[in-house]
Amino acid sequence: VISKLPQTGTNIFTTMSALAAEHDAINLSQGFPDYFCSPELIELVNSAMMAGHNQYAPMAGLPALREQIAIKTEMLYGAVYNPDTEITVTAGATQAVFTAISAVIHPNDEVIMFEPAYDCYAPAVKLMGGVVKSLELEPPDYRIPWDMVKRLITNKTRMIILNSPHNPTATILSKQDIDELTALVKNQDILILSDEVYEHLVFDGQEHLSMARYPELRDRSLIIASFGKTFHATGWKMGYCLAPANLMQEFRKIHQFLVFSVNTPMQHALAEYLKNEDHYLTLPGFFQQKRDHFRQGLEQTRFKLLPCAGAYFQSVTYDAITDEKDVDFAVRLTKEIGVAAIPVSAFYRKGLDRHVLRFCFAKKQETLDIAVDRLLKV
Amino acid sequence: VISKLPQTGTNIFTTMSALAAEHDAINLSQGFPDYFCSPELIELVNSAMMAGHNQYAPMAGLPALREQIAIKTEMLYGAVYNPDTEITVTAGATQAVFTAISAVIHPNDEVIMFEPAYDCYAPAVKLMGGVVKSLELEPPDYRIPWDMVKRLITNKTRMIILNSPHNPTATILSKQDIDELTALVKNQDILILSDEVYEHLVFDGQEHLSMARYPELRDRSLIIASFGKTFHATGWKMGYCLAPANLMQEFRKIHQFLVFSVNTPMQHALAEYLKNEDHYLTLPGFFQQKRDHFRQGLEQTRFKLLPCAGAYFQSVTYDAITDEKDVDFAVRLTKEIGVAAIPVSAFYRKGLDRHVLRFCFAKKQETLDIAVDRLLKV
Ligand SMILES: CSCCC(=O)C(=O)O
Ligand SMILES: CSCCC(=O)C(=O)O
Repeated sequence: VISKLPQTGTNIFTTMSALAAEHDAINLSQGFPDYFCSPELIELVNSAMMAGHNQYAPMAGLPALREQIAIKTEMLYGAVYNPDTEITVTAGATQAVFTAISAVIHPNDEVIMFEPAYDCYAPAVKLMGGVVKSLELEPPDYRIPWDMVKRLITNKTRMIILNSPHNPTATILSKQDIDELTALVKNQDILILSDEVYEHLVFDGQEHLSMARYPELRDRSLIIASFGKTFHATGWKMGYCLAPANLMQEFRKIHQFLVFSVNTPMQHALAEYLKNEDHYLTLPGFFQQKRDHFRQGLEQTRFKLLPCAGAYFQSVTYDAITDEKDVDFAVRLTKEIGVAAIPVSAFYRKGLDRHVLRFCFAKKQETLDIAVDRLLKV
Repeated sequence: VISKLPQTGTNIFTTMSALAAEHDAINLSQGFPDYFCSPELIELVNSAMMAGHNQYAPMAGLPALREQIAIKTEMLYGAVYNPDTEITVTAGATQAVFTAISAVIHPNDEVIMFEPAYDCYAPAVKLMGGVVKSLELEPPDYRIPWDMVKRLITNKTRMIILNSPHNPTATILSKQDIDELTALVKNQDILILSDEVYEHLVFDGQEHLSMARYPELRDRSLIIASFGKTFHATGWKMGYCLAPANLMQEFRKIHQFLVFSVNTPMQHALAEYLKNEDHYLTLPGFFQQKRDHFRQGLEQTRFKLLPCAGAYFQSVTYDAITDEKDVDFAVRLTKEIGVAAIPVSAFYRKGLDRHVLRFCFAKKQETLDIAVDRLLKV
């Protein structure tokens, strides 16, 4: 068989988590919690199964869950999404991203994205025959150079992919970014794919600037969200997409044939769990405490901290320690020191190496403490 | 936006289930059980969640589950699949089908399939730029005319899609079909996508002739299976794909970016549940009893029964009753008689109408009895 994605090997998350397990290292690489999700949420899934909710959900998702998503979206972002026509529940955010790209990218369409970037965007674009045009952003602030974005736009530009709060850089879009973006796409036939899976993880009293907030952006945006990231259950693979009806119609045509519908008992549970807004409003405080604790620890080490405004990742540089490549250093840290991180070069398609490692701090305080203890030895 | 699938509307399953609900009809349309799945299986999911198995599973699936799938496949079909490289767990069979087609179909590749057919094959082929070449099979026996298949083969033929036991026709492939197929693909660069989601539902002492049984076919086959169909939990959206390592490698490249991984607690539960082979070996008896009971009932009506060798569907013709189109008659039956069925013309892309309706008999005996009572009034 001729490969459709010849360059694809085992991804960095699988590689580093396997290496961490092999060497019994603290795994701060792949982005998932090491503590339990809510027993209440688990009990809701159990009740739904016991009540017999084990057959196909409607294709677009359980109406009760879409309703709750609409309520949450309106409360947080002042945006009205019609549950019948503008919200679809997905098997995780990754499925939502893939489906969104499949639904709107035609052969030769150009897609602008920024690197470092989560690894699932570009392959989906390629698979649909689209062309990725990417800009490489640089630490420490990873600012988007909007004037350069403008120069990338052609009459084939079909989509811009954004991600805020950002994985891996922990930056968030500012109001100025939003204004630049709005000016840029005005009167252009350009869609936005907005990966907002860390929407609830914005720190220091800042606000998450969802595309949903801005009518000019909302009307051209496919917004992706994740219950796994929000409710500490990444293995449940539950997420959703918000989009205006004309885009959602195309999204659902793909969704229907790609997966048809999504886990029924978990949809019932999430519909109920979302009713208590504390379940997500408390998240910034919960994670900010972890961030601050972890940063305090890291400040005692020879690593240099990069800013962290959102998401649950803390990046560091290590020029005072070694001039090894980040990939090599990450492997050595795992094997010799017992702490696994993600080398950020893995998020650049060309492997741009600025000597940055990403640690996930969605971990128990004691896990972070042991990691810091070990990193102190570097 | 320009639609990638302009012809796609709401599918027949959604339409008929909604109509059934609206008119309080017995829903024998969409293929799912109306009885509970095993409480033991539910308890296994609950235990897995309580034990903290709520974060990302490995990309290809939980090793313990892949191991059990390998054991089952060897026991049933005498075929050895390597869990590390030849088995991948998916978010239902539909995701597996979409992923398999995405992984191997390049623009202009030709794909041979047979109609009536489940509705997710052709759109996936189209989306990848492939060309569907289909043969329309005819009731009552829906035999595949292998000589005509042979004439469809060109140097662009990349895949043949098979489905046995068959939805909607309830036919199964015979040893003669297997021999014809084997002769046909010999020395040809043609893959097989084999949808075997009803593998355990073969009646009257016949055997399911999985592609896995035949080395010459196995080596070119992507085989799709479903835990939802097998364990009466279609809403859990759990399935898997078997394929030789070279094909599985390409499958996983897509899977990784399409969904990354699949529901973790449910994988734990299924790994445990599969250990007791009675959980699937008893299925032919379980469903054959339902089939026989339902057929006995239908024989008292003015509908004419088509054969049912496998799967959980019973088709009927109705020429003695009306010459309405099957779509119109199905709607009228739902509204006026209170029994919903699927018009089989919906499984032909050109809507070929041979006045056949499909009833799903994966229902409680009392449900089937009420349905028959109502159908007696026709
Ligand atoms: C799907 S595994 C990767 C999880 C994640 O979001 C990350 O580590 O960046
Ligand atoms: C995914 S809904 C359709 C279920 C099914 O297999 C059928 O009714 O044919």
